[in-house]
Amino acid sequence: MASESGKLWGGRFVGTVDPIMEKFNSSITYDRHLWEADVQGSKAYSRGLEKAGLLTKAEMDQILHGLDKVAEEWAQGTFKLNPNDEDIHTANERRLKELIGETAGKLHTGRSRNDQVVTDLRLWMRQNCSMLSALLCELIRTMVDRAEAERDVLFPGYTHLQRAQPIRWSHWILSGAIAGNPLGVDRELLRAELDFGAITLNSMDATSERDFVAEFLFWASLCMTHLSRMAEDLILYGTKEFSFVQLSDAYSTGSSLMPQKKNPDSLELIRSKAGRVFGRCAGLLMTLKGLPSTYNKDLQEDKEAVFEVSDTMSAVLQVATGVISTLQIHRENMGRALSPDMLATDLAYYLVRKGMPFRQAHEASGKAVFMAETKGVALNQLSLQELQTISPLFSGDVSHVWDYGHSVEQYEALGGTARSSVDWQIGQLRALLRAQQTESPPHASPK
Amino acid sequence: MASESGKLWGGRFVGTVDPIMEKFNSSITYDRHLWEADVQGSKAYSRGLEKAGLLTKAEMDQILHGLDKVAEEWAQGTFKLNPNDEDIHTANERRLKELIGETAGKLHTGRSRNDQVVTDLRLWMRQNCSMLSALLCELIRTMVDRAEAERDVLFPGYTHLQRAQPIRWSHWILSGAIAGNPLGVDRELLRAELDFGAITLNSMDATSERDFVAEFLFWASLCMTHLSRMAEDLILYGTKEFSFVQLSDAYSTGSSLMPQKKNPDSLELIRSKAGRVFGRCAGLLMTLKGLPSTYNKDLQEDKEAVFEVSDTMSAVLQVATGVISTLQIHRENMGRALSPDMLATDLAYYLVRKGMPFRQAHEASGKAVFMAETKGVALNQLSLQELQTISPLFSGDVSHVWDYGHSVEQYEALGGTARSSVDWQIGQLRALLRAQQTESPPHASPK
Amino acid sequence: MASESGKLWGGRFVGTVDPIMEKFNSSITYDRHLWEADVQGSKAYSRGLEKAGLLTKAEMDQILHGLDKVAEEWAQGTFKLNPNDEDIHTANERRLKELIGETAGKLHTGRSRNDQVVTDLRLWMRQNCSMLSALLCELIRTMVDRAEAERDVLFPGYTHLQRAQPIRWSHWILSGAIAGNPLGVDRELLRAELDFGAITLNSMDATSERDFVAEFLFWASLCMTHLSRMAEDLILYGTKEFSFVQLSDAYSTGSSLMPQKKNPDSLELIRSKAGRVFGRCAGLLMTLKGLPSTYNKDLQEDKEAVFEVSDTMSAVLQVATGVISTLQIHRENMGRALSPDMLATDLAYYLVRKGMPFRQAHEASGKAVFMAETKGVALNQLSLQELQTISPLFSGDVSHVWDYGHSVEQYEALGGTARSSVDWQIGQLRALLRAQQTESPPHASPK
Amino acid sequence: MASESGKLWGGRFVGTVDPIMEKFNSSITYDRHLWEADVQGSKAYSRGLEKAGLLTKAEMDQILHGLDKVAEEWAQGTFKLNPNDEDIHTANERRLKELIGETAGKLHTGRSRNDQVVTDLRLWMRQNCSMLSALLCELIRTMVDRAEAERDVLFPGYTHLQRAQPIRWSHWILSGAIAGNPLGVDRELLRAELDFGAITLNSMDATSERDFVAEFLFWASLCMTHLSRMAEDLILYGTKEFSFVQLSDAYSTGSSLMPQKKNPDSLELIRSKAGRVFGRCAGLLMTLKGLPSTYNKDLQEDKEAVFEVSDTMSAVLQVATGVISTLQIHRENMGRALSPDMLATDLAYYLVRKGMPFRQAHEASGKAVFMAETKGVALNQLSLQELQTISPLFSGDVSHVWDYGHSVEQYEALGGTARSSVDWQIGQLRALLRAQQTESPPHASPK
Repeated sequence: MASESGKLWGGRFVGTVDPIMEKFNSSITYDRHLWEADVQGSKAYSRGLEKAGLLTKAEMDQILHGLDKVAEEWAQGTFKLNPNDEDIHTANERRLKELIGETAGKLHTGRSRNDQVVTDLRLWMRQNCSMLSALLCELIRTMVDRAEAERDVLFPGYTHLQRAQPIRWSHWILSGAIAGNPLGVDRELLRAELDFGAITLNSMDATSERDFVAEFLFWASLCMTHLSRMAEDLILYGTKEFSFVQLSDAYSTGSSLMPQKKNPDSLELIRSKAGRVFGRCAGLLMTLKGLPSTYNKDLQEDKEAVFEVSDTMSAVLQVATGVISTLQIHRENMGRALSPDMLATDLAYYLVRKGMPFRQAHEASGKAVFMAETKGVALNQLSLQELQTISPLFSGDVSHVWDYGHSVEQYEALGGTARSSVDWQIGQLRALLRAQQTESPPHASPK
Repeated sequence: MASESGKLWGGRFVGTVDPIMEKFNSSITYDRHLWEADVQGSKAYSRGLEKAGLLTKAEMDQILHGLDKVAEEWAQGTFKLNPNDEDIHTANERRLKELIGETAGKLHTGRSRNDQVVTDLRLWMRQNCSMLSALLCELIRTMVDRAEAERDVLFPGYTHLQRAQPIRWSHWILSGAIAGNPLGVDRELLRAELDFGAITLNSMDATSERDFVAEFLFWASLCMTHLSRMAEDLILYGTKEFSFVQLSDAYSTGSSLMPQKKNPDSLELIRSKAGRVFGRCAGLLMTLKGLPSTYNKDLQEDKEAVFEVSDTMSAVLQVATGVISTLQIHRENMGRALSPDMLATDLAYYLVRKGMPFRQAHEASGKAVFMAETKGVALNQLSLQELQTISPLFSGDVSHVWDYGHSVEQYEALGGTARSSVDWQIGQLRALLRAQQTESPPHASPK
Repeated sequence: MASESGKLWGGRFVGTVDPIMEKFNSSITYDRHLWEADVQGSKAYSRGLEKAGLLTKAEMDQILHGLDKVAEEWAQGTFKLNPNDEDIHTANERRLKELIGETAGKLHTGRSRNDQVVTDLRLWMRQNCSMLSALLCELIRTMVDRAEAERDVLFPGYTHLQRAQPIRWSHWILSGAIAGNPLGVDRELLRAELDFGAITLNSMDATSERDFVAEFLFWASLCMTHLSRMAEDLILYGTKEFSFVQLSDAYSTGSSLMPQKKNPDSLELIRSKAGRVFGRCAGLLMTLKGLPSTYNKDLQEDKEAVFEVSDTMSAVLQVATGVISTLQIHRENMGRALSPDMLATDLAYYLVRKGMPFRQAHEASGKAVFMAETKGVALNQLSLQELQTISPLFSGDVSHVWDYGHSVEQYEALGGTARSSVDWQIGQLRALLRAQQTESPPHASPK
Repeated sequence: MASESGKLWGGRFVGTVDPIMEKFNSSITYDRHLWEADVQGSKAYSRGLEKAGLLTKAEMDQILHGLDKVAEEWAQGTFKLNPNDEDIHTANERRLKELIGETAGKLHTGRSRNDQVVTDLRLWMRQNCSMLSALLCELIRTMVDRAEAERDVLFPGYTHLQRAQPIRWSHWILSGAIAGNPLGVDRELLRAELDFGAITLNSMDATSERDFVAEFLFWASLCMTHLSRMAEDLILYGTKEFSFVQLSDAYSTGSSLMPQKKNPDSLELIRSKAGRVFGRCAGLLMTLKGLPSTYNKDLQEDKEAVFEVSDTMSAVLQVATGVISTLQIHRENMGRALSPDMLATDLAYYLVRKGMPFRQAHEASGKAVFMAETKGVALNQLSLQELQTISPLFSGDVSHVWDYGHSVEQYEALGGTARSSVDWQIGQLRALLRAQQTESPPHASPK
């Protein structure tokens, strides 16, 4: 009753339960994803109850057997939801009771729904993170394979989207593979948050803390940010103006209006998903902000966020792998995009090797660039005499500077664009992939 | 083919179209919501084509008739999607062609898919905003009705969650009704953005600009922020400690573990949705950031955001209306929560009326509060002699200060908590609701 | 004292006020921006007190005079802050008391600090929004002037960053001017939120509602999103690969390492600020979420957000104006980027005009594109015989299709890229600018 | 020049450098924080140059000595900035040249500004994270000390803000200490991101990747989210209605209007900062989204975000430590808030121990609660006869249930609220604090 006088003010609804509230409150439409984790968690819990003397061996066996039956129904698609099943936990418990009778009522001794929800979600995420991790490895492996095969292709490196210095095409690919590599984070996340190796320190904190969700959403946001940048590069490289790469038809779409067009929809979708994924992370943090401690229903927002982000990541990683593995590169265009002014830094280094301090050499090389521009010639077409008006240190051997292949070979430091350095990067990434493979199995099938 | 050598690097997929890409690219799972708007938009467009001489009258009639048939199939649930229908627009066009043959191919003369998508979404939002606006009015009307009926209940006003001054319960309700009132914004949004009254100034901008989506998402975020604050207040007022209000059973849930509990799940869910809705707004803005001009596939993110937010708002507004209309208030507890120290400001005003500057009066009243605390008595139990040690301006009439009803009646300025002011607020809101009703109809059925 | 036993647990601090708390609580470092609004508001309030009989005429004059003195000290930079001045309001009140004595204490009769803070911020924003509005008009005016002068330059229109159809360069500029045009929003914001024309409906809501701040921050976020897209376009158009535009040296920066480089720092900074500004909007909404009603100190976060965003917008708008006004365009490169395949849609329309349904014509044109690609010739180099193998509707007049100028002239609908349409857009924007100018003055000097 | 005709369109500015652009581009106002890291990084780099044969020993010594001089000037506040010093790196290099002449020009051989910026920021963050980590430990230590001293105080545990079961006050404190404990993350962050132990794998990635910044901002956001929840609890516990705790005057503020008020400003500010900090995180991710690879000026946004967030965290952690260490608790009120219905779960367990399945016992206990409510008595005042109408399993020993101390002692599992469990939590946290102390020193003074 709303008021002492029995009056309802304007309410659309009269009765004991508002059907819209029921739907608003219900989570079964999305938390059914958790069916397997819920059965798995309940089986473990019933074993614990038996150990604590709260279930007899016979009761435990009955429950375990019943839960297996429930799982079987889900797996075969024969599980029937009741209108009153508000979440996966009540649905499974209701069905268990139908199957084994009153003993089912003992399963939840000393276990709150909130415990159960959070445990199930952790179990689900443990399996799911293994899956995502495998997809990520597949993407990185594809990039590494490709980087290895195309080591000899040079093209412009850019900063500020301005042509900077010649680099190996593989160097670009590997920068993407590394940026996308959250292997460390992922492993750490699995271990620290989901492995259940550590005991939860405080029971109040355990049911209301959602760090493992927030951290997963942030990992996904950061990973998508990297992928959005890789997608942006490839979209640019695929424009008519750059023409460095061409997307496979499998990842392009035509225009409904313009017959000549082929659009990089796959890459644009990858780029766009950074927003969606981050939005989920932002939304969860806002939901958590200022919440009183322990469980509040607000926390129910965690699951849809996790499920949607996991689906998105799974699709993005697979499409990205497909894009990279089928991308065609235009070697000649890449080569044509290299120009002598991109060796201006090398020209400065030439002077440094002759003893000039770098800042002066930078200035001298800048003058040469300006002179060439003024005369309307390429930087390597300035005569020795002309260069010597800038600095007497220039001599005949300056001609050796004008070699793109030689230029990239200078960057032999670890991480550089020299052939040996690129090979080293490939080796490092392969080692990481192997290490990941060795570590993953225990999580891949956590049953 | 990916490389000159025909090699695919690590790709999971070989063939002409990656099925995961196809699914990633497809929007039919969610944009089928737009079926009605799509038919409506196409009907308008075919009339335009006829006017421009690009369709004959007979062709137009054939198309209009076919589109009505398509709409009928959707309305009756008999429309069958093909696996190749990637979005609602291709689905409807494909079906139209099946129904009327080649003439269907003339419908999209000079019309890009991107135009069509954005027009359909605007049409859908126009209808949808009318629906949300009506639900919002229902919530406000409920609050106003309730405020009117319970004008005589006093309870503590809080700032910083500390008891401040006595106020009318209706004053609190009305503050919520006003805060939640985005009527102005809504009307403006409809008019400026969705009314199609204004001609889009620039064709490049028209297909890529999503201000109307961003503004809708922000309106929803701000509205939810207000509702999260109202929910927070009611959750607090419903704690054992406050015991000012009691949620109807229809909007509460029991505990799976603790038999005595009744939790305010409805209010907690309302509070939590502020995060989800804002997350969508944040996600869209991030997707838009730095996007090259005109259409990019990234813009496809707009629709799921709009649909999800619209569904969320619709549920939240209805549940909030139900909560408010069935909420029980505990008048005695509200009254008991008033205490004489909440009249300390009135005590200062007493001195101001006797000629003391406010800052001094504030200090004098503070001394009285301290004296009462020290003596362990209520503020109104200090004797006149005791008060006069603080200021000689105190005299016998100070006893008139200790009347909560009298206190609230002082705040007669528009917006205050006096009975007359509360009545005025009720009147203002009723006028707004009436104005809204008069304005809405044209949008409510835009067909 | 912290505990009954008098023990402090681990606290760094012993005493009556924690100096870090004092600094944490203090807002004077940033709210001194409000000095003028604070004086202005207090002057209005003292007039109100006099009218209500709470100040004599003489007292009011004394206060008004004192406040003018305070303002004078701020304006001349001679106002001295005390260590105890925690915010601008206490600072001004303290100084007023020093200047005019006890009467100063009467100024705040019936006025809470929270009222004062929110009023001052509204006053400040009213002036500030006028300033930003003027800067925005300056940017739009620059774009319109430029669009008018360069109407005859054609270049590729892009969708998905793929070359689509030829458009006028002015069409692109105007799409930016329109996208950046939040004149309507701005005016509405000023009127509805800051004009004080409407009476605040409810006193509880008045001190705790920050819609006017949230809406300002969102307006800025959306405006920056548009500017980030314009910046992205110009960064792309300025790459070596596009070479459509060249930034003035005044808005570029050299590289510390590579002598030949000139980087578009100004545009990159504009693009980056979209993140910063949106971050402030997101932060404020998160702060507001779930806050109990009426004033809580959390609301103090509003001011730094507003000040920082206002400064950022002011710089961005001025730099953007400078960039646009000094940008050099390379007409020949723009022209060279047009290619016959961009007229494939026109080829389809040619067939439509001969009676073919658009969908078939689109397919026929697509076949022609494919034939040209296969033969390695430009689309306009296919012979009539070759075209007729695709459709017998092709005849000699197809040669008229291959004219870029003619192509753009087809788009005469309002908003299109035809000369007449571009002229119309220029006219519309000039009218808006004039209207803005007429409306602004009352806000520009709100004293 | 902007156009062929030499015309500038509407530009406010004519000249070679726009002063607003210069200011917009300049970062010296905030990156001067990096002076020490910059000198430190340059010293390391000059040693590398000497090792690589690019500097002689004498030149290196000259540079090292000069850099020490520069550092000295910063430390003593005598360093003078020039108007042309656009960032800390150019300022230090300019000054070095003044001090030691042309040799200074050799320092930056082969080192781009972008490398230098990112290295300096990493160095600064390494030191800074040590400082924040120490402050965090201080907060946790304070909480642990307090939890130890007040182990015997019982009060209501809440879920959904409804009274649930009796818990120890220390249990609440420890849940906060654990929630706020990002020690693991922090250590991992330091090691993995800032320790420079690992070699950066790819030079392109190294200058443009800002994961270490994003992760720091996210760590801070998550930490603040926890602190916002702790603040919310304490604000509630400090209301008149709860009256469980009282803030020290050192962390409260009075009202300018209401003499009797004492507001929890410190806690409200802590709660509010969650928004600000998250806003910075959101802003950076949006800035990064879709950015082309390698360096773009957009990345300059990283530093102000890091500096502001670091300052905020530092203040928040210190104020939170002060609040917790000086907080007064009201034991009697806490005790009075316990009521027999909070033992309803214990009543169900009583039946479970007599052999009833938990779900039936939960129902039986619920009936008892309802019976007590109906009769208007406390749950423990139901007679044995009355209880036996619900279940014959009730017998005389049911009276043992009604003991709050006994109730909490049941929760002996690790993480529970039993005395032994609370002691164990205290021990675990002390061990963590000790471990942190041992690990920190190497980072605390990284010079």
